[in-house]
Amino acid sequence: MRILLTNDDGIYAPGLRALRTELVKLGDVTVVAPATEQSAVGHSITLLAPLLVQEVLDEHNQFMGWAVEGRPADCVKLALLELLPEPPDLVVSGLNAGSNAGINVLYSGTVAAAIEAAFFRHTSIAVSLEYTKPKPLDFPQAAKLARQVIEQILGQRPAPGTLFNVNIPSLEKGPVRGIRTVPQNVAPYSESFDRRLDPRGRVYFWTNPGFDCPDPHPDTDVTALREGYITVTPLQFNLTHAGLLQEMNGWKWQL
Amino acid sequence: MRILLTNDDGIYAPGLRALRTELVKLGDVTVVAPATEQSAVGHSITLLAPLLVQEVLDEHNQFMGWAVEGRPADCVKLALLELLPEPPDLVVSGLNAGSNAGINVLYSGTVAAAIEAAFFRHTSIAVSLEYTKPKPLDFPQAAKLARQVIEQILGQRPAPGTLFNVNIPSLEKGPVRGIRTVPQNVAPYSESFDRRLDPRGRVYFWTNPGFDCPDPHPDTDVTALREGYITVTPLQFNLTHAGLLQEMNGWKWQL
Repeated sequence: MRILLTNDDGIYAPGLRALRTELVKLGDVTVVAPATEQSAVGHSITLLAPLLVQEVLDEHNQFMGWAVEGRPADCVKLALLELLPEPPDLVVSGLNAGSNAGINVLYSGTVAAAIEAAFFRHTSIAVSLEYTKPKPLDFPQAAKLARQVIEQILGQRPAPGTLFNVNIPSLEKGPVRGIRTVPQNVAPYSESFDRRLDPRGRVYFWTNPGFDCPDPHPDTDVTALREGYITVTPLQFNLTHAGLLQEMNGWKWQL
Repeated sequence: MRILLTNDDGIYAPGLRALRTELVKLGDVTVVAPATEQSAVGHSITLLAPLLVQEVLDEHNQFMGWAVEGRPADCVKLALLELLPEPPDLVVSGLNAGSNAGINVLYSGTVAAAIEAAFFRHTSIAVSLEYTKPKPLDFPQAAKLARQVIEQILGQRPAPGTLFNVNIPSLEKGPVRGIRTVPQNVAPYSESFDRRLDPRGRVYFWTNPGFDCPDPHPDTDVTALREGYITVTPLQFNLTHAGLLQEMNGWKWQL
């Protein structure tokens, strides 16, 4: 099996390295990932700047893949259209430092990379590790769990272009309680800014940390993850509101 | 009616100015938009850099709103949480130079701004103008059409948090044929890169122009727009693949 591995934390991120160590047990892994951190870039792509590409070696000085000075979605496009000699059987994005559940899914470069692969009809899986305490994350252990989930997803022989979002709960909370298949939570988040003045009196804002969902819908990715379950959410990229579309067929328009 | 207007082409873009001229006929318009062009940034947000904010005057030296050195989604968050004295009744994003249909919806900063407003349960409308020839776009005429569509959407009294994606066909193609309510096209696009070497022999790629959908699904935003119709697509931001989720409830997992 040929696996393309990417992420949004950058090619030198420990989460990507740990996941690669596990994925080589499943097949040939080629990494095409951003040269630098690209968190919360969503589904950005680079149209107006050149995408510099550089070969990267692993810790044993073996060819590992390419670093791209671009976004996660650029990495997937370049890998599929230019860099990989053969199409991959699976695209994996992660292991992200921090969960990607709820509406965070839409801000996530990790998930965007997986969606981009699904645009090309490749099976893809985004994997993220919840971050609850200011302590180093146990990426090697989380990557083992991620590999077990990936193996079981592949065992179900998903159709080409199928897309999954996997979150591993913080391992600080104790042993993982199991795996749950859940929908994305769409309840609102609470968020705030810190307003400041620069030395010249100009107003600026910092986005405060602590972006949180105070009242998540039950039985969703956000709640199951909080309860200590690994969450698996199948995703799709048709944003059409089907119910409202049907209702709108009765609307009369004029120009 | 209080209207928040934003975009991704930047606060000085002619499309935003033309749309503002039309929207003031419907209510009080406040602009909170990126200070610089932000095309194809998708649903990026700014977590690690300060968001500089500056008051901007219109062509009559009257207060128009604020320019934000950030992404379209940052602009909406800042407007709703910090800048606007009262919540808006409507959020409009556009008028974008270039259509946002098919999978482009996911790359679009224009649409991301409208989705961000929907996160906050505000009614929001993204508006884009198709670009087919290297000629200046007729924003004033397109903005008139956009305002007519917006008026009719509001006339249907959509529930708070309802989200619409509107595309105006290129006016170079002749008179608009009407308004159609259509789903997002999800057929793949054809795209390519131009591989080059820099003077030091390093490989880089440019994203080629001409990103196009060779085989769109019928009766979608992409086809209706090509045929000269204004398209209206209701959107939502729950990316869960509901059909596959149901199927996955039968999967057995183990750790």
